[in-house]
Amino acid sequence: MTDFHDAPELAVSDWFNTPEPLTIAGLRGQVVVIEAFQMLCPGCVSHGIPQAQRVASTFGSDITMIGLHTVFEHHDAMTPVSLEAFLHEYRITFPVGVDEAAGAGGMPVTMRRYGLRGTPSLLLIDRAGQLRVNAFGQVDDLVLGARIARLIDEPVPDVDAG
Amino acid sequence: MTDFHDAPELAVSDWFNTPEPLTIAGLRGQVVVIEAFQMLCPGCVSHGIPQAQRVASTFGSDITMIGLHTVFEHHDAMTPVSLEAFLHEYRITFPVGVDEAAGAGGMPVTMRRYGLRGTPSLLLIDRAGQLRVNAFGQVDDLVLGARIARLIDEPVPDVDAG
Amino acid sequence: MTDFHDAPELAVSDWFNTPEPLTIAGLRGQVVVIEAFQMLCPGCVSHGIPQAQRVASTFGSDITMIGLHTVFEHHDAMTPVSLEAFLHEYRITFPVGVDEAAGAGGMPVTMRRYGLRGTPSLLLIDRAGQLRVNAFGQVDDLVLGARIARLIDEPVPDVDAG
Amino acid sequence: MTDFHDAPELAVSDWFNTPEPLTIAGLRGQVVVIEAFQMLCPGCVSHGIPQAQRVASTFGSDITMIGLHTVFEHHDAMTPVSLEAFLHEYRITFPVGVDEAAGAGGMPVTMRRYGLRGTPSLLLIDRAGQLRVNAFGQVDDLVLGARIARLIDEPVPDVDAG
Repeated sequence: MTDFHDAPELAVSDWFNTPEPLTIAGLRGQVVVIEAFQMLCPGCVSHGIPQAQRVASTFGSDITMIGLHTVFEHHDAMTPVSLEAFLHEYRITFPVGVDEAAGAGGMPVTMRRYGLRGTPSLLLIDRAGQLRVNAFGQVDDLVLGARIARLIDEPVPDVDAG
Repeated sequence: MTDFHDAPELAVSDWFNTPEPLTIAGLRGQVVVIEAFQMLCPGCVSHGIPQAQRVASTFGSDITMIGLHTVFEHHDAMTPVSLEAFLHEYRITFPVGVDEAAGAGGMPVTMRRYGLRGTPSLLLIDRAGQLRVNAFGQVDDLVLGARIARLIDEPVPDVDAG
Repeated sequence: MTDFHDAPELAVSDWFNTPEPLTIAGLRGQVVVIEAFQMLCPGCVSHGIPQAQRVASTFGSDITMIGLHTVFEHHDAMTPVSLEAFLHEYRITFPVGVDEAAGAGGMPVTMRRYGLRGTPSLLLIDRAGQLRVNAFGQVDDLVLGARIARLIDEPVPDVDAG
Repeated sequence: MTDFHDAPELAVSDWFNTPEPLTIAGLRGQVVVIEAFQMLCPGCVSHGIPQAQRVASTFGSDITMIGLHTVFEHHDAMTPVSLEAFLHEYRITFPVGVDEAAGAGGMPVTMRRYGLRGTPSLLLIDRAGQLRVNAFGQVDDLVLGARIARLIDEPVPDVDAG
């Protein structure tokens, strides 16, 4: 009855701003917003990250905001040590996971699972764990606000029947 | 069962960008977004009007976007003749009504009916004709997108029973 | 010895923000910055006017900042009455002259004398009364700051010998 | 006869975008603009670096634009490896030097010599090698354009007599 697919599970090697790892499975029942970024990607710094911060402050506990550091270039330049300082300097307080590296450089695991085309990318996952939006580049705030509101308003699925 | 009130009727002396006058009564069943502005109000020109244009292009026929020129100061400077040139220069294509003047200067009729505090003001009216948002000043796009989406998703009321 | 031409005299029908009319001749010895604008020109409101205000506040008495309302379209919409309200709302405090209308509509007198291509246009006149810059559209602040500083630093000509 | 001081010499451990190291002594006779920044300082990324790029493209060979990476916090996060990727991603093509670390963390050598208060800081050095501007935080483009133009227009000193 639907064309949506289950959102792939996250593969994360390090977490920041969360006491314990987050999983797509564990977030079933919640609306999940994922901002996939690289700390040295200009479009992420000027657009994606500020928008993620606005989403987090606007929708609060109605959504779960997650940052995903999907390093697919300059791997030595964007280590978790550098990311931690970046999160501190840019005052990012939502959970951020480091996408698991896949062998020698190249695209990390989660990025490949979701078929991301680059950074920034914005992912919206509904309460049933389905991937509903996978947008590369700039997303308009009006459009995003509408999409998130509608996902929030969808009924919580019967988890046992999931 | 509800705290919302019926949106007061518009009192408009001149219309632009519409072949015939619009009324709140006649728009029953539709989501109506009204941008109340003055053409010489800097905050309207830099924020309110561009946001109204984004709303119109983003939501298209899912809403009815209306501009309301609520002149409460410098009346001689913001006549319909000046407004028409303003609409042309700023490429405003949604319907715009001139709020009816009330005697010698001061606050025009519709502005008073809605209790607007100034310009820009944003009004959201639901499909049942109820005033749901009356916001003075800057409104965030994420918040606005969410509010409009939710009004769009509300069921169309049984007009006969209205 | 120079390719510069004397700046044409202003033809102004109304002045605002000045106790007496200003003339190019009377400003000999000073660096004059003229912002030619129309109050309903979007590029003037978003770029030209704010830049003129920055120039006035940055260079203070080292220059004479003048606004010139060069109405070449929508004449009935941009009368001196409307302009006065515009100047009040946008808090423009430097002298502004209304370019003298030339017959039935069309390009006003000063605009034609200077060969302006449209609005906004920025004019720089040196201490000797010569037109040194006549720029249509957006001018970069770094470039403009440099040009103005150099004109300020030019020696004051011997007026008697002018 | 002057209150200006000689600009301290640079202490740089790594250079990017230049075939050989630059020194204040070697740049005698030129106007030098130095943007002191940290790659993870938000104000540097949003304001200082873009302004430095505008200065470089506006004034070209009339000045020597230098970036100085003055890391005084998060040292492990902003290594030369990370900086190199940053310069690539942000398309910074003017020479950038890494300010020499001083022992275990803390303020680097050049930063201390110049008494910088933080990042971004903008330094202007005249043709005689004197420090003329040492500005912390945001600098206005109009003001900066004027300052640089005036330094460019100062006579080249007799280097032998320096």
